[in-house]
Amino acid sequence: MENNEALIIQILAHRNAAQLKLIRETYAATYGEDLLKDLDSELWSDFQRALLLWTLDPTERDAYLVNEANKQLTSSNWVIMEIACTRSSNDLFLVRKEYHARYKRSLEEDVAYHTTGDYRKQLLVPLVSAFRYEGDEVNMMLAKSEAKILHEKICDKAYNHEEVIRILTTRSKAQINATLNQYNSQFGNAINKDLKSDPKDDYLSLLRATIKCLTRPEKYFEKTLRLAINKLGKDEWALTRVVVTQAEVNMQCIKEEYHKRNSVPLERAIAGDTSGDYENLLLALIGHEDA
Amino acid sequence: MENNEALIIQILAHRNAAQLKLIRETYAATYGEDLLKDLDSELWSDFQRALLLWTLDPTERDAYLVNEANKQLTSSNWVIMEIACTRSSNDLFLVRKEYHARYKRSLEEDVAYHTTGDYRKQLLVPLVSAFRYEGDEVNMMLAKSEAKILHEKICDKAYNHEEVIRILTTRSKAQINATLNQYNSQFGNAINKDLKSDPKDDYLSLLRATIKCLTRPEKYFEKTLRLAINKLGKDEWALTRVVVTQAEVNMQCIKEEYHKRNSVPLERAIAGDTSGDYENLLLALIGHEDA
Repeated sequence: MENNEALIIQILAHRNAAQLKLIRETYAATYGEDLLKDLDSELWSDFQRALLLWTLDPTERDAYLVNEANKQLTSSNWVIMEIACTRSSNDLFLVRKEYHARYKRSLEEDVAYHTTGDYRKQLLVPLVSAFRYEGDEVNMMLAKSEAKILHEKICDKAYNHEEVIRILTTRSKAQINATLNQYNSQFGNAINKDLKSDPKDDYLSLLRATIKCLTRPEKYFEKTLRLAINKLGKDEWALTRVVVTQAEVNMQCIKEEYHKRNSVPLERAIAGDTSGDYENLLLALIGHEDA
Repeated sequence: MENNEALIIQILAHRNAAQLKLIRETYAATYGEDLLKDLDSELWSDFQRALLLWTLDPTERDAYLVNEANKQLTSSNWVIMEIACTRSSNDLFLVRKEYHARYKRSLEEDVAYHTTGDYRKQLLVPLVSAFRYEGDEVNMMLAKSEAKILHEKICDKAYNHEEVIRILTTRSKAQINATLNQYNSQFGNAINKDLKSDPKDDYLSLLRATIKCLTRPEKYFEKTLRLAINKLGKDEWALTRVVVTQAEVNMQCIKEEYHKRNSVPLERAIAGDTSGDYENLLLALIGHEDA
């Protein structure tokens, strides 16, 4: 098997999306099974899970990951938030469309039904339902006034106030960025520093991560990788998810960010923490050109 | 001018969408102006407003109407709700896309920013952000349990409880219909009857209208026409809006509903209440085949 798996990695890790689609269709024609159904089996090794996720097209993969998160009890909010905030508006919409086709329900319907805790619904449902404007236009008056609103609510510890939610869930990323720059200039701290008062608060952690995903996704992914790699008993699902979903998107920035923050290249950190086929596949995925 | 306008009505009221698009492009090429900009002028007669709205394609028209509603102080919530709840999921998404292109902001961003009152935001923003599943599949267990939730919240007068909002803003129309049928069977009243306790409450009126739009749009439109026609000082904007937006969609059902409820055909009611070119245009639009 060793040789087969090396071959699979060599082939799959270097295909583009159209070629991967062909591989999946061939798989379905050969085995009469949908790869996504196979993924639901819990027998897969980390290697197999990563490989199957990689062969999905990005839209199907995201729909699958959100659906999976909707069925889990813990740490699933982060996956949902990550997909809602780091994909383009159009890509997020395509995920919602795919979710209809595959699960016969709407994505926001499942998120609203399965998340517990008011604050999660308040934040997650509008995040996944958003279709943000993506132009560069920024309204500086608005940035100033909404920075002030955010600061007031944070001073009052009203972290889930509807105005905070409204600003973060409906404004364009360019506008949010301008607002948070204003926040920093007017009030002397980055907003995420002011949101750090209670490090044990799950909602505040999610809110800080949301802000990071919207404005500095490479920093968010770097931190997710760092925690996944260093964690006692590692978090292979997060490691796999970030590598597979970002391989063709933003991996170069994430690698640079990782190297800067950890003084070690991502390749070396992954190699030191994984082994065998799983290691080889992840390295092939993050190193496209070098592998 | 009389002859010209008769000719315009004759031509415009009987064109299909593709031909109307051509007319608009010719207009733009001839006068160097966008029809939508002209619409913003407040000098138009009811006839001219109806004519211009009619020449827009449905997606642009809806985006225009929501944007206009976002700039108004009163009765605009209804227009936004009506468009969010009576269009198909895909059409509503196309309206959001058109809104980006035309107004350089997202539709939900403007609705969230401009509506006042927590409950409006709570209801309207998820309504316009929804991308409901449109299949016929119904989960009867869920219909029963959510009918019970709705009944409990209504008994507690918690009309804006997050569960009420969740059910109405995320479930498919088929599922909501099943849930409300269960409500009726289990608790003996149609939900809208139980929501009638205080007829002066704006939020409750909007909630009832939302339920009607989601489950019996022809009844909602019949009532809107009835009120627009009978109102002291008439409501030409509502009359124009319903006729123009529904002419090619659901007019036959609306006419039947109107006749049944008012014992007079819609044609005769409109003829008795309007005059001149405006009357002729509306009659041509509702009577397509007979005019």
